[in-house]
Amino acid sequence: MEYRKIKDEDNDGGTVSDDIENLRGKGFSGASVSNVPVREQSKWKRKTVVTLALTFLTSSQAILIVWSKRAGKYEYSVTTANFLVETLKCALSLAALARIWKTEGVTEDNRLSTTLDEVIVYPIPAALYLVKNLLQYYIFAYVDAPGYQILKNLNIISTGVLYRIILKKKLSEIQWAAFILLCAGCTTAQLNSRSDHVLQTPLQGWIMAIVMALLSGFAGVYTEAIIKKRPSRNINVQNFWLYIFGMAFNAVAILIQDFDAVVNKGFFHGYSVITTLMILNHALSGIAVSMVMKYADNIVKVYSTSVAMLLTAVVSVFLFGFQLTLAFFLGATVVSVSVYLHSAGKLQR
Amino acid sequence: MEYRKIKDEDNDGGTVSDDIENLRGKGFSGASVSNVPVREQSKWKRKTVVTLALTFLTSSQAILIVWSKRAGKYEYSVTTANFLVETLKCALSLAALARIWKTEGVTEDNRLSTTLDEVIVYPIPAALYLVKNLLQYYIFAYVDAPGYQILKNLNIISTGVLYRIILKKKLSEIQWAAFILLCAGCTTAQLNSRSDHVLQTPLQGWIMAIVMALLSGFAGVYTEAIIKKRPSRNINVQNFWLYIFGMAFNAVAILIQDFDAVVNKGFFHGYSVITTLMILNHALSGIAVSMVMKYADNIVKVYSTSVAMLLTAVVSVFLFGFQLTLAFFLGATVVSVSVYLHSAGKLQR
Repeated sequence: MEYRKIKDEDNDGGTVSDDIENLRGKGFSGASVSNVPVREQSKWKRKTVVTLALTFLTSSQAILIVWSKRAGKYEYSVTTANFLVETLKCALSLAALARIWKTEGVTEDNRLSTTLDEVIVYPIPAALYLVKNLLQYYIFAYVDAPGYQILKNLNIISTGVLYRIILKKKLSEIQWAAFILLCAGCTTAQLNSRSDHVLQTPLQGWIMAIVMALLSGFAGVYTEAIIKKRPSRNINVQNFWLYIFGMAFNAVAILIQDFDAVVNKGFFHGYSVITTLMILNHALSGIAVSMVMKYADNIVKVYSTSVAMLLTAVVSVFLFGFQLTLAFFLGATVVSVSVYLHSAGKLQR
Repeated sequence: MEYRKIKDEDNDGGTVSDDIENLRGKGFSGASVSNVPVREQSKWKRKTVVTLALTFLTSSQAILIVWSKRAGKYEYSVTTANFLVETLKCALSLAALARIWKTEGVTEDNRLSTTLDEVIVYPIPAALYLVKNLLQYYIFAYVDAPGYQILKNLNIISTGVLYRIILKKKLSEIQWAAFILLCAGCTTAQLNSRSDHVLQTPLQGWIMAIVMALLSGFAGVYTEAIIKKRPSRNINVQNFWLYIFGMAFNAVAILIQDFDAVVNKGFFHGYSVITTLMILNHALSGIAVSMVMKYADNIVKVYSTSVAMLLTAVVSVFLFGFQLTLAFFLGATVVSVSVYLHSAGKLQR
């Protein structure tokens, strides 16, 4: 399913008659792929690799969180961990750049120095995430944690809507239907006996949840806009500047929230092997998200993380003896059909 | 939603370019309807009326069942009630025929007398339903009642598959996807805290549930085949012969199951106003099902009864103070999207 989706995503250069063929359900034979030019094929490969990497990293991220909770290790400061994640991403981007400079030399597209004009928009996503994370503390006055997990699926819809409005990219009617199904399917898969509480959420809770979904969707779509604005610009340079501002915002968060704890107990207090793995994982998935923004788009990102959520649940059955519910199977079915429809319903350009 | 679907169903005569327009989401403007020939329009109207009637009757049926349970009136014999339903359907078909004979005179298509060749297949659906109803007693050894409600949604899939195999009618890939969604959506809408029990159903229970779904699907599809075999034949004559065999089979059921009770307590023991209303409702919905088979098809029937299930739940909120669950809203969303996709994904002929 995932495979078909990504493949389809890439057929941007397809003719209208190709698209009609897809709607007729005849597309995607092995033969048709070999007709695609080599450049298209390598583009498609890159898209597949970054999407699979994001899916894998997101699911292992959720598994690490469960593992760390089970191990009862959660006493490290989250702000220091976030700061380290941004720092690690910065360092990895620089390391990648150093290799590129060695082989290709410094060019206009891969040099680190930048103009104010280019860099001025880079702090915006980091700022949006900061506001969203601050709101997160307040929403728990109105919604409990399982309810919040349910409400977070509003991100799917907000990303679709903002993707349409800000990036001016069109989805077909069937792809919109698929997007609604993705949201319904993910929520269904997460249903449990306490989920109905969310229906008692007061109006303030709903408003905050919607605002948070819009902030998160806007940050994602805006990042895509920044990264895609200059397609020839090396992604590692773009990442470096994104992450530098991420470091700055997280440094401020440490000062505000955890300054005393860091001074008294030390920066690395409470860190364990799991914490280190989680930081490594967050850094790599952060980079994978950027790559998906560059080579695919926010829609692929949403599908990738949704599929990751399902994978996590299945893997948790084997790792932690979790029991899958009927709701999970139904939700997983709906998500799978949604992935298929996103591909089958590709817009005729 | 329902409206779009039925309208679309009827566009059988549309050209391929029309269909592509539909897939592009431009179809169904008011103007396009007025271009449809008058005969097509009246066909469409008839299809709409019978489908809406079936939806309305099916939802009021479920509401009557809840009402009768609440009133604690359930001590009448089900076999005598079923017999009366078949008798009433027979009588109504004859009454309709009498009117037609008066206005149109007796023709080859509306005369009651028939050939062995025509009538020989009519007992088959009634026999299939009898076998299915007998199996129903045994399946409760493996599945509880709420679990059985969940498993009954397999009917949706079996109907689709048998419709494809027996009637050789094709559904597009998107319509198949819509059908899977319909099954998942209906099941999701019915989820409750005890639904997960169904996952513990032993293999025998699953096999019986699948056999019952196949029997029920086969009976439905076979009825459509019988009724559609001679399109010019008056539906009331076809119904008369279907229901005569229904009466016969139910008379046998009374003899086997409730003979003693009927002899000792009388045929109408335990009947109440609600029982009478239920019999009337069952008779009318039985006729509506036949009409849908004649003027639409089994797929429309499945959509109609699924939408009725959702309507019932909504109406029950007002009538009985039922509480809608999050699962219901999610399932209803998925069913709605499925109805849309069935229309949007119409096969290009």
